[in-house]
Amino acid sequence: MADVTIWNEFRHEREDDAVAAVYPDGIHAPIADALADDHAVRTATLDDPEHGLTASVLDATDVLLWWGHEAHDEVRTEVVDRVHERVLEGMGLIPLHSSHYSKLFKRLMGTSCRLQYREDGGTERLWVVDPGHPIADGLDESIELPESEMYGEPFDIPEPDRQVFISWFEGGEVFRSGCCYRRGNGRIFYFRPGHETYPIYEHDGVRRVLRNAVDWAAPTEGSPRTFGERE
Amino acid sequence: MADVTIWNEFRHEREDDAVAAVYPDGIHAPIADALADDHAVRTATLDDPEHGLTASVLDATDVLLWWGHEAHDEVRTEVVDRVHERVLEGMGLIPLHSSHYSKLFKRLMGTSCRLQYREDGGTERLWVVDPGHPIADGLDESIELPESEMYGEPFDIPEPDRQVFISWFEGGEVFRSGCCYRRGNGRIFYFRPGHETYPIYEHDGVRRVLRNAVDWAAPTEGSPRTFGERE
Amino acid sequence: MADVTIWNEFRHEREDDAVAAVYPDGIHAPIADALADDHAVRTATLDDPEHGLTASVLDATDVLLWWGHEAHDEVRTEVVDRVHERVLEGMGLIPLHSSHYSKLFKRLMGTSCRLQYREDGGTERLWVVDPGHPIADGLDESIELPESEMYGEPFDIPEPDRQVFISWFEGGEVFRSGCCYRRGNGRIFYFRPGHETYPIYEHDGVRRVLRNAVDWAAPTEGSPRTFGERE
Amino acid sequence: MADVTIWNEFRHEREDDAVAAVYPDGIHAPIADALADDHAVRTATLDDPEHGLTASVLDATDVLLWWGHEAHDEVRTEVVDRVHERVLEGMGLIPLHSSHYSKLFKRLMGTSCRLQYREDGGTERLWVVDPGHPIADGLDESIELPESEMYGEPFDIPEPDRQVFISWFEGGEVFRSGCCYRRGNGRIFYFRPGHETYPIYEHDGVRRVLRNAVDWAAPTEGSPRTFGERE
Repeated sequence: MADVTIWNEFRHEREDDAVAAVYPDGIHAPIADALADDHAVRTATLDDPEHGLTASVLDATDVLLWWGHEAHDEVRTEVVDRVHERVLEGMGLIPLHSSHYSKLFKRLMGTSCRLQYREDGGTERLWVVDPGHPIADGLDESIELPESEMYGEPFDIPEPDRQVFISWFEGGEVFRSGCCYRRGNGRIFYFRPGHETYPIYEHDGVRRVLRNAVDWAAPTEGSPRTFGERE
Repeated sequence: MADVTIWNEFRHEREDDAVAAVYPDGIHAPIADALADDHAVRTATLDDPEHGLTASVLDATDVLLWWGHEAHDEVRTEVVDRVHERVLEGMGLIPLHSSHYSKLFKRLMGTSCRLQYREDGGTERLWVVDPGHPIADGLDESIELPESEMYGEPFDIPEPDRQVFISWFEGGEVFRSGCCYRRGNGRIFYFRPGHETYPIYEHDGVRRVLRNAVDWAAPTEGSPRTFGERE
Repeated sequence: MADVTIWNEFRHEREDDAVAAVYPDGIHAPIADALADDHAVRTATLDDPEHGLTASVLDATDVLLWWGHEAHDEVRTEVVDRVHERVLEGMGLIPLHSSHYSKLFKRLMGTSCRLQYREDGGTERLWVVDPGHPIADGLDESIELPESEMYGEPFDIPEPDRQVFISWFEGGEVFRSGCCYRRGNGRIFYFRPGHETYPIYEHDGVRRVLRNAVDWAAPTEGSPRTFGERE
Repeated sequence: MADVTIWNEFRHEREDDAVAAVYPDGIHAPIADALADDHAVRTATLDDPEHGLTASVLDATDVLLWWGHEAHDEVRTEVVDRVHERVLEGMGLIPLHSSHYSKLFKRLMGTSCRLQYREDGGTERLWVVDPGHPIADGLDESIELPESEMYGEPFDIPEPDRQVFISWFEGGEVFRSGCCYRRGNGRIFYFRPGHETYPIYEHDGVRRVLRNAVDWAAPTEGSPRTFGERE
């Protein structure tokens, strides 16, 4: 059992009726629901003091899930610094969907993280390209999302350490939609699916991936919290 | 300018009228044509003595392209040994299409190299996922092949060192269709497109990839021919 | 708890008094001892029928440790085929020391696996270069072995997926001494330390690595046993 | 022939007599000398307007070498932004020695880039672990530097795409001293050797590496300058 914090920008849901209709309690609610049976889950949002990510919250967090979309710029630099440092110490991080463009993810990657996108509600199919990876445990050969937003290549990221999923889109594109990285002692899993109006996080396959990813990203026992330095 | 050898199984073209109609001089002919302006090109086939891959031919080869399909088992082990050794010394290797299942490629990968396939003549689009890679030089964001055979994931290969292309297929699949590896001193580029009846190697984008790949895979000047050993 | 099989060539210990003095019950004995508290351990040796690696033994094995040295050539090809297939299905593999030159490891790597060596009894220090990796759990910044055989670069292997240890040798060499790979669904950890007369496997740090590596290499629950194929 | 810019902090050489004695014209002088036969070389320093790295200089630069040491904090953020963007567009970057701790390199890596060090003047031996890599062209199996500053593991960097050199230090440490990365379209080669008083850049092997690295890092013809984005 890991200590999980789900961070949500939580703006769309309060400002846009269409989003509120799908996610009345915030998009963090179905994510929390997917994880609550196996893990201790807390949530934090942009408008909480210190965005809900105080030093004590981060110290007590094994894995952080991150959802940002329209307000990346409002995340304060000192909070990004603090979260970045915790990832390097060993906290797992799971950036979801449009969080590819968060300050935090761009800083961890060192690249622009640009991609192509189109909001068309077409079908997405996520193919498992690494069936033996723990994040693919218990899945079929692919996950099909009947309505999805398209993200397309080229996606400007460093070569992933492990590629778990590649998405096919009805409109003609592909995307590296499940990417594993290590930075410092921390494990990072970028997972593409998600949308503020399609109910992506209600999908059984997606929920299984979220659970597997938390298990994978949690630091193992005995891992040090600080990376070596000595003079 | 590199010394290039194109190896072709050369059976389909002599046994099957439909194939002969598309490739009357063998599938190696359009490949040779794509490369002949920039490189010294020779060809070799399965039914040549020693499959055309004598020690002296291999010694004089900078980059070997390989096309095999229905007769992988007829390639003799001692020839595979010899080619394998030359790759480790530094000769570049470009296995094409169904050569994923050749003895040589499977031996270099160490995995089953299994994949899914379906011969349906649907559209394939190869997306460039690594636009700065030399093999993608001069290409548009994707290459579209109007009629193609489908290859689908999971493709049982080691994680590529660099992923240059990922294919989208009309029928709903994706595939890692351009994969770079180093083994010993040799550079390997697996390139998926190809078929015995669709005229894939007449396509300008595909031909550009073949030229780029030869440039990339050729050993650089000053590279040693034998990997270190000392006791 | 994983089902672990320790495979030992078991020749030195019966033929050479100096080796027998250090490993009277075979080099598999201290390895088994290091693992027995946490895992179900069986052993198998070269001179057992089918080298002790029958289909039923392999089916019941989560992680296989491999020690070979002077009789690599006596391991029968059909047994190598069977073990190779099981690794691709998901069985973990931990080749130790001179097993870098076993048929099995060379086949999984696709390279010559050549290296440099010198039997001089100098000090070896294994530096942890990836402190957050599960195989480094609970270790200090380095493991020091007062007497060791030197293995030196260049080591002809594919670029490891993760580099956990790099060794320093008193005589002036370095070596990539802890290397992670995935092949098919199987996890592979090559671990350099070991010798037929130095009591390497009695060392607490080395024993901790062996335990960590078994935990890491064991297949996760829900992992499929066969890699996808469909036509 | 590439357009090369050598950036030097250029403070030590003007403030410290011991440094000035070794590098009277700045540490960029011997680096420029190593490259001038094959490339068009310009230099730029911290105290130039805009640190000498104006948009027009960067636009005209194929490969940038970077030497920073005691004044990393004085490099202005807008210049780091501009250089970072140019690397992602395709400009090659070769950070030298203590530039591991520059704003630019840390930003490209996304990690702390911490390491261990000790200024003791002991011997360093750089082992070539990837003899077929273009950066190792024409080298012997190792490069020996009789007096060097020690850098030790753990070095907090992402797993390199390719590891070309690993250093052995007389005092007992190892270090990943030649590391290749791609970020965006840009190629990056971190090269450890260098010191403000040891004449490292006069060493023939080191100079050969610098020349090879510039050839490797220069963008290939036909490479796009901007990474794809489309909506």
